[in-house]
Order: sequence, then C-alpha cells, then structure tokens
Amino acid sequence: MDTLVKDNIKRVGPYGAGLGKTPANYAPLSPLSFLPKAAAIYPDRIAIVHGEWRSTWAETYARCRRLASALTRHGVGAGHTVAVMAPNVPAMYEAHFGVPMTGAVLNTLNIRLDAEAIAFQLTHGEAKVVITDREHSGVMRRALSLLERHPLVIDIDDPLYEGGVLLGKQDYEAFVAKGDPDFAWSPPEDEFGPIALNYTSGTTGNPKGVVTHHRGAYLNAMSQIVSWGMPAHSVYLWTLPMFHCNGWCFPWAMAANAGTNVCLRRVDAKLVFDAIREHGVTHMCGAPIVYNLLINAPAELRAGIGHKVSGFVAGSAPPASTIEGMERIGFAITHVYGLTETYGPAAVCAKQAD
Amino acid sequence: MDTLVKDNIKRVGPYGAGLGKTPANYAPLSPLSFLPKAAAIYPDRIAIVHGEWRSTWAETYARCRRLASALTRHGVGAGHTVAVMAPNVPAMYEAHFGVPMTGAVLNTLNIRLDAEAIAFQLTHGEAKVVITDREHSGVMRRALSLLERHPLVIDIDDPLYEGGVLLGKQDYEAFVAKGDPDFAWSPPEDEFGPIALNYTSGTTGNPKGVVTHHRGAYLNAMSQIVSWGMPAHSVYLWTLPMFHCNGWCFPWAMAANAGTNVCLRRVDAKLVFDAIREHGVTHMCGAPIVYNLLINAPAELRAGIGHKVSGFVAGSAPPASTIEGMERIGFAITHVYGLTETYGPAAVCAKQAD
Repeated sequence: MDTLVKDNIKRVGPYGAGLGKTPANYAPLSPLSFLPKAAAIYPDRIAIVHGEWRSTWAETYARCRRLASALTRHGVGAGHTVAVMAPNVPAMYEAHFGVPMTGAVLNTLNIRLDAEAIAFQLTHGEAKVVITDREHSGVMRRALSLLERHPLVIDIDDPLYEGGVLLGKQDYEAFVAKGDPDFAWSPPEDEFGPIALNYTSGTTGNPKGVVTHHRGAYLNAMSQIVSWGMPAHSVYLWTLPMFHCNGWCFPWAMAANAGTNVCLRRVDAKLVFDAIREHGVTHMCGAPIVYNLLINAPAELRAGIGHKVSGFVAGSAPPASTIEGMERIGFAITHVYGLTETYGPAAVCAKQAD
Repeated sequence: MDTLVKDNIKRVGPYGAGLGKTPANYAPLSPLSFLPKAAAIYPDRIAIVHGEWRSTWAETYARCRRLASALTRHGVGAGHTVAVMAPNVPAMYEAHFGVPMTGAVLNTLNIRLDAEAIAFQLTHGEAKVVITDREHSGVMRRALSLLERHPLVIDIDDPLYEGGVLLGKQDYEAFVAKGDPDFAWSPPEDEFGPIALNYTSGTTGNPKGVVTHHRGAYLNAMSQIVSWGMPAHSVYLWTLPMFHCNGWCFPWAMAANAGTNVCLRRVDAKLVFDAIREHGVTHMCGAPIVYNLLINAPAELRAGIGHKVSGFVAGSAPPASTIEGMERIGFAITHVYGLTETYGPAAVCAKQAD
C-alpha cells in the first residue's frame, strides 16, 4: 500500500499528511456541534418546554450564544469554571451549551448538598461565575458567605417558583439579553479538552472532582440515542436531574436528536403524568424511586395517556416488581448503570427477545 | 482551573497526562468494535439472512474472526489490500469486519466495471488477496489475466447462484473454516488508520482511489442510525450494493444496531417485496431506479405487507412522483446525498413537520 500515496489517490477530508496520524486540522468531536445543526435544520421545532414557556431550536441556539457572549464579556473563557445550582429549568439546559462555548468548564452543583459541601466545590473548582435558582437561595447564600473569592452571582428568577430570594447583582434573563445572539464561538481546540466538572457527593471525605471532555460527551450522547434506539424528535421529560452527571449527557443527546426537552422543577406524580399526556413524552430517565412514585400514584392521574413511554432506570437492579409495575402502567423500562466518571450510564441491560 | 490538577481530582479514563492532549493510550474509534459487542449482548439474534441460510451475531463474529485468522496465516496484515468482487452476499458482509481485523484495507470492487478498470484497481491498490463471486468470473478471469502480480484468489461458491466458474485455488467457505474462531485481532493503533479503499468509476480518466479511516467509518455508521432514528434491531434489506462506498457504512451500522441484514444478490421487485413480507424489513437504501422499480411493479407483489418501510434514496433529488409513489405503496422515503469521500450520504434531506 506504500504506493497508494501517489498521484491519483485522493485523501478523505483533511488527512493529506498521511493516514494513521491524527491530522493537525481534524474536526474535534464536541457535543456543542449538535446545537447549530438542530437550529439550522429544525429552526422552528420546539426544543424546550417549561410551563407555558416555549423555545424553538433556533431560539435556543440564539439564547445559548447570548449566554456565551455575555459570559465572555465578563472575562470568562478557557481555564475558568462556571457553576450552576438549579433544578431542571431552561437556564440549566442552556448552560450545557453556553458555558462550554466560551471555552469554560460547566460545574453543575448537586442541589441536595449542604452549604459547606457547595462552598468546598466552588472553592476547589475556582468558580468565576455562579448561576443560581431562587429555590436554592438559602443554601447558596450561606455557601457564598463561606468563600474567600467572590464569583459573579447570576439569579435565575423563574416565575414557576415562588419563594426564596435573589442573591446576586445580575438577573439571568437580563444577563442573557445583553449577549450577542450571533456570538462567534469556537469549538474546542482539542476534543480531549474539558467540558464539565462534576463532584462526587463526598460520602468518604471531601468531594472528588471528575473532569469530562468534549469527545467523551459527544460519544456518550450519540451512544444514548443508538443504544436506546431513540427515533428522531423524541420528547424527553426531565425527571433525571441535569446536575447529575450532566443528565447522563441527555442535554446534548436531545440536541443531536432534534427532540423536545420538557423541563420539570420537581418530580411529582401528577406533574409527570400531566407532562406525559400534554406533550406526548416518549422518553425519561430516573432512579428507581421515581418509578415507584409513579406506580403508587392513583390510577386516575394516568387517565387519557394512550402511548408507551420508554424509561431508563439507573442504579442497582430494580426489583422485578418495579419493572412489572411500570410495564403494567404503560412504561417500557430499561435498566442502566454507570458512574460519574463514565458520563452516566455506560452499561445498559439489553432486552432479549425472551 | 490550574489547581484542578491536584490531589483529589480524578481524571476520566486514562487521561491523567492532562486534559486537552490526545492521550497516548486512548481507545481508538473503530466500527469493528460494534461486532464483538453485538455478539456478546445478542449472541442468538439473527445477524444475516441469505436465502435459507442464517447466521447469528455470535456466529457472524466467529466467522469474521476465522476469515481474519485465515488471511493473517496467509501473510495479510497492515499495509496490505484485500479486494472483493461480489454482490450482497454474506461473504461481502463478513469482509467488512474480517479484512480490517487483520490490519489490512478492504477494497470492494464495482461489479459493473469492465476487466480493464478492475485490473487497474487491483494493480494500483496492490491487492494481495481477491475474493470473487462465481457470477463475476467472466470479468474477473480477464482482469486477473491482466495483472503482473498474482494475488491469492478465493472463490465465493454461493448455491443461490447458478453459472460462472471457479477461478482460484481456494473456496471461501473452506478458507474461513480453516481460520481460528477465537482469533485475537487488534483494533487499529490509530483511529485515523485506513479501513477501506474505494475507487471512483473512472469517468474522467483512470479511477481515483479514496482511502477512508476507522474513525470516519465509526462516526458515519453511528450518524446513520441517529439521523435516521433507527430503532434497535432494525431489519435492513441490502438493495444498496455493499461495494458502493461500503454500503454507506451500513455493514458496520447494522452491527451497532444489532439488527438483521437481509442479503439480496440482485434487485428485483418480487425478491424485494418477498423479503419485506417474510423478514419484516424496516429499512433499505437505494438509487431512485430501485424505488421506481417497486412503484411500477404489479400490486399483487405487495400483497400481505402491512407495515411501513423506511427508505433512503440517494443521488440527485428524486421527482415528487417517485416520493409520492413510494408513500402510496407504504414507504417513508428520505432523500440523502453524499460522495465516496464522505463515506456515503453526508447530507440528509430532513423531513419537516409540514
């Protein structure tokens, strides 16, 4: 084959320097690439549903670029960390694109941790910006007071939540509005560059940080779609926290799928069944407790739902009664298992014909 | 983030040397990885159907390893080329895995070319082994007579075809049987290493060779599944020639999908409809002429087919009458476009809601 490097052989793409060598100018794998594609091909499809609020893929891309632009103007870039403390709201989704578009790393915080654990993570991760939802202002106020360095604090002031207080000098919507919707972001120079920082919950000492990279997030997002056999334009209900291993890469997977993200501030059986009925939810993920909640809910909450919902359930193997219970109420459950270090579920319990 | 490289940060996977640098020991992307996975998870699912012949994923993996083993014993390895001249038969499918498992490059030959064009490719690509089907023995006998160097010739002696003659000293089934079903193959050292060599048809001079790499084939196979939204275990009918851009990466995609490949020696309306009815075909690809053939076939050939078949149609945009005609007889058509250099269709005409 040596003579293949000659006159009338065309190399594929930019690999003129020789096969078997990583080309200097290859296109790095990054899940950020899914968003402009969804926006270009399906601009008017609904990307995010949150209460009465809707955002198309074109609008979502513009909002993420605005966020990236505003963060960049604030000096955020490669080597920096932006932390988010929020339930599954649109701002949390947008952060998965807008933050790494600046070159910075996204650090989603576990909303169930106490102020000391949060402060440890903000200090250790050197968060330059903290985006926080009013619901968590109690813990966050105290966590911020424990910091020696003071990050920019941006408040998510979600009308769907009553209570809590605003902690920062910036409102998320106002901050995003100041950004440029045509912001020219760059993909990472190297696909092994960092995209996200997730901390363990610190059961055995101080939390440990796991840094994931663009290539891994891209591949895991694609693998979720392939291993689940998700049809294009699936409707995904956010019962799994996005802060948890970046929602198993589903924020990025749903852009690759050009589907619809249905946000959910909290897991409640009525809210879940209402969302399934109203939006035609096809897919959702969660811990066994989520499914047990649905099994044990009054049957009338399920009234009028005629379609099957596919559910990933993670963690240790759920008891047969859970799987059977879910089948009985119209769910097709797949058991998965993974680690923070594997971007969420790396092992899928594949269904066999029998 | 500089201080993140310290005591209690765990790196993801093997990237301890620092993020943003391609790690020396990363797992290279290769579509060959799909096969052991399908064999391990779905050993008893049918991978290949050819007439009355069936091969499960476990059997298919074993046969591919046997082929790789037998080729290796014959001295085939990195830097070598193995050419195949065959319609869509199991041996052609197996070559897509068994040949690159040895480190060699697969060169599928266009069965519609004349002996001179074939001889040019075998000479230019320095084919060390040629696997050839009896149906093409006329052209191949002459092509082989034009060569200065004499490759090992292996005959595919398919009972589903009558006619032609055997040209070589080896029978494909006997050759495979000699190989080790537990052959320890290695993935490519570098994911940019070559996997396949395809020649253009030489419209404007001598054929031009295009060398594709493992990473590109992996990504395109995954993208086919994601962009088409293929459910797991799809049933794929081989109406598109595998010699054509490696069947748009579907030999590899179908292993990732753990689906079923339905082989077809030639595109004939009755054979196609019979296969769709008998095997529950869900997906197929082809040029517009394939679909026109189906539209114009007698309606009774379609009797008893109750399910929808998804079809990729490639090339220039098909006339509306073709797409409408196909919808009328129960197909959902998607128009795609690509080049040999892009591993087949790189552009998909995405369906909009309206």
